[in-house]
Amino acid sequence: MSFGGFRNFLALMVLIWIQSSATTADAQEGMVWRKLDLNSLVYMELNEGTVVVELNPAFAPKTVKQFKRLVEEDFYRGLSFYRVIDGFVAQGGDESDINQPNPEPALPAEFQREWDDKLPWTRVEKKDMFKAETGFIHGFAAARTKSHVWLTHCPGVLAMARNDEPDSGSTDFYIVIGQAPRYLDRNLTIFGRVVHGMDVVQRIRRGRTDENGIVFKDTDRSRILSMQLAADRDAADQELFYVMDTSSIAFGELLAARRNRSGGFFHRKPPRVLDVCQVPVWSRVEKPNSLNRRSVQ
Amino acid sequence: MSFGGFRNFLALMVLIWIQSSATTADAQEGMVWRKLDLNSLVYMELNEGTVVVELNPAFAPKTVKQFKRLVEEDFYRGLSFYRVIDGFVAQGGDESDINQPNPEPALPAEFQREWDDKLPWTRVEKKDMFKAETGFIHGFAAARTKSHVWLTHCPGVLAMARNDEPDSGSTDFYIVIGQAPRYLDRNLTIFGRVVHGMDVVQRIRRGRTDENGIVFKDTDRSRILSMQLAADRDAADQELFYVMDTSSIAFGELLAARRNRSGGFFHRKPPRVLDVCQVPVWSRVEKPNSLNRRSVQ
Repeated sequence: MSFGGFRNFLALMVLIWIQSSATTADAQEGMVWRKLDLNSLVYMELNEGTVVVELNPAFAPKTVKQFKRLVEEDFYRGLSFYRVIDGFVAQGGDESDINQPNPEPALPAEFQREWDDKLPWTRVEKKDMFKAETGFIHGFAAARTKSHVWLTHCPGVLAMARNDEPDSGSTDFYIVIGQAPRYLDRNLTIFGRVVHGMDVVQRIRRGRTDENGIVFKDTDRSRILSMQLAADRDAADQELFYVMDTSSIAFGELLAARRNRSGGFFHRKPPRVLDVCQVPVWSRVEKPNSLNRRSVQ
Repeated sequence: MSFGGFRNFLALMVLIWIQSSATTADAQEGMVWRKLDLNSLVYMELNEGTVVVELNPAFAPKTVKQFKRLVEEDFYRGLSFYRVIDGFVAQGGDESDINQPNPEPALPAEFQREWDDKLPWTRVEKKDMFKAETGFIHGFAAARTKSHVWLTHCPGVLAMARNDEPDSGSTDFYIVIGQAPRYLDRNLTIFGRVVHGMDVVQRIRRGRTDENGIVFKDTDRSRILSMQLAADRDAADQELFYVMDTSSIAFGELLAARRNRSGGFFHRKPPRVLDVCQVPVWSRVEKPNSLNRRSVQ
């Protein structure tokens, strides 16, 4: 971690290397990366750029199945983000839905699943502020009790919008763009997370907070140009995505280093606790057969 | 709170009204607004748009004094955001600093202040995850022990960058753009917060995470076109800013409504806790003598 006032470029580079040792450097050296399944990755092309989300069929199988079908049917092409509140969520989807009924089937709630001892759980806090154990599972921030486990509303999470009824979601989704709204946990179906282009998501055009984020003028809205499953892309466009393997020893060491800040920068030792939504789980993207690795988040 | 799948526009409007009753509507009806001092407001004109920050001389008098002097001397004109990590911070300031010594005086650490029973404290949690009582004070999220109180690293916070030494900050600053990095609390001087244009801040060009967010190419960087104290603006450009009065009964009711979610949307009652960084403190801006009120955050 280095904060400004640098005296010269060399000092800058040294500072970066030293002060970020518990984050940047350690996060790369020895890190174990998990390759993502091209059948669980969706490219969202927006006016603002490209966003890639990883779907989570282990936690939301029915929602993922329907979303993938909609993506393959080109349902989202030309639709918009019509409700966007800075610091909260960007909600997009079926604009015609506002005027006409939507024939897509309503989805059953997939708010949580039963705990299974075989799940690859990496604990973060035994009991966090929101009264549950927190941890990571396949790169997703999650929380659990003895009997259940659920994905948590951290920044970058993709979830299905709904009306009052639990089983009323169908096509419209939101991405969390601000401080984790954890009170939504287990009330909505989280079915993915952004692994590339969160900076693009942050450029989505906001509505007014006092108008519940609705962007009333159609021409003011950020638009979804298209969505495509990674597996459906042309061979020439194929990219491979990797995220930190949150079950690895290396990731455990990253958690430990963040929990126990050392080095000259921290004159006051921070409390030895971690907010599961504040731990970055990096992604990488590569062109196949290329040595040109690019870290994206 | 309403999440998509709306059947028609009327239903949409009704949903907005009903489901957001604990947030949008209540936040406006009966809210008490505090007018901000034009001598503590700074306009930052960026390539991306206009950002307005409220300074906090009560917590960081020396830092605010120097920052205001630098603003009035036009120090920041043309400088850039040279270290920007998505989900963490956007750091800007003296680009020449990288190559040449900076003659500005180093600032003493103003990481916390002594508790004073006369401070207008509105408690949020008696003991949050980070081992302190949280609350609001003059619109700023804060934390305290029996003896001290400090501003917390929530999204939108403005703080002074520094090197390893506590007293090494001078000109370069950062704005928190992601999940609250609370481990920085009491290790850096927070001296303001964004009250307008957080969506603009979110458009600042990011660096690569694995390069510690440094945007190496000067032409790739987001630029500060100018900064100006609100009090120094021409009469014709004057705007009045208001933020929710966090000492008011109305704000206390807003906290209570967020803590105790009711209505048909929440089938599972969320834990009765509040993350102090997840409570929005809205701002409003008005042209003097105008009835055209605009809520901005």
